[in-house]
Amino acid sequence: MPTVHIHMYEGRTKEQKRNLVKNVTDAIVKSLDVKPEAVTIFLHEISKENVAKAGKIVAEA
Amino acid sequence: MPTVHIHMYEGRTKEQKRNLVKNVTDAIVKSLDVKPEAVTIFLHEISKENVAKAGKIVAEA
Amino acid sequence: MPTVHIHMYEGRTKEQKRNLVKNVTDAIVKSLDVKPEAVTIFLHEISKENVAKAGKIVAEA
Amino acid sequence: MPTVHIHMYEGRTKEQKRNLVKNVTDAIVKSLDVKPEAVTIFLHEISKENVAKAGKIVAEA
Amino acid sequence: MPTVHIHMYEGRTKEQKRNLVKNVTDAIVKSLDVKPEAVTIFLHEISKENVAKAGKIVAEA
Amino acid sequence: MPTVHIHMYEGRTKEQKRNLVKNVTDAIVKSLDVKPEAVTIFLHEISKENVAKAGKIVAEA
Repeated sequence: MPTVHIHMYEGRTKEQKRNLVKNVTDAIVKSLDVKPEAVTIFLHEISKENVAKAGKIVAEA
Repeated sequence: MPTVHIHMYEGRTKEQKRNLVKNVTDAIVKSLDVKPEAVTIFLHEISKENVAKAGKIVAEA
Repeated sequence: MPTVHIHMYEGRTKEQKRNLVKNVTDAIVKSLDVKPEAVTIFLHEISKENVAKAGKIVAEA
Repeated sequence: MPTVHIHMYEGRTKEQKRNLVKNVTDAIVKSLDVKPEAVTIFLHEISKENVAKAGKIVAEA
Repeated sequence: MPTVHIHMYEGRTKEQKRNLVKNVTDAIVKSLDVKPEAVTIFLHEISKENVAKAGKIVAEA
Repeated sequence: MPTVHIHMYEGRTKEQKRNLVKNVTDAIVKSLDVKPEAVTIFLHEISKENVAKAGKIVAEA
């Protein structure tokens, strides 16, 4: 703990994911005074075909 | 907000998904008196290989 | 299935919740051609103290 | 209810999944005195590319 | 990993929760050949006022 | 999007939560090149009575 689930659109590069988990972990460590080893992050990549805003599929909006 | 996650079996058509997010958004807007733009829906399609009821994988039940 | 999780701010009345689950269930039944008994909905009420947009706690924005 | 979500790394065999849902269902039935039919389990298989510990992607650690 | 989220109705005793996490962890260890230390379980207790089946709030059904 | 769910133990101060959402949002904006307004964070505070590691409730371990 903390355990983090990040839902984001598909298509990020490995480099972006690598930076993301590094930077988010640092942000949590700094803000909550926990050890980096305590932080687990799950990345959930989701297609714009499976997200809707205001009643419309994002991929089609 | 509201943010909605719908877990359903794989295999729905684009037309079904389009109707689903439209109708669920309308239902929320009507019930909670929020604006359509406030409603985000995530569709999670899951294989019957990865759902179990009563201790049995649904795809094999 | 489908199983639905709705995350919304605290403070809705029982009447609003009652309408919400009725209307969302109807919307799913109509859109996906499933039986009402197949639809389970979980309501998650969350404080504006525990939601942030653009880096700011909603209760303080 | 209870409804269970198990997040695990990809790569388990069908036999392992079959045993997993059987054994977890039995454990819940025994512990909470519910009927097996009341237990639904969702398996979420996640790539080591999408999990991080201590700020590092597990697949690269 | 595995990480488990169990959603169940409110009102279980400490003894039931203690047995539940022990038995579910044992079930996972046995089924997937992982170490007990690798298993994290989150219990989410939910009111019957916030669950609906077939369009009806469970507490009122 | 991205939408972030952070599960953490109860007991953080308002100041810690304020810093947490600010710093995590900044980390995401920097890593993924998205706008701050696109980032939504949900904080889920969970009792040590409801988390288990290695088959033991954390509050009792």
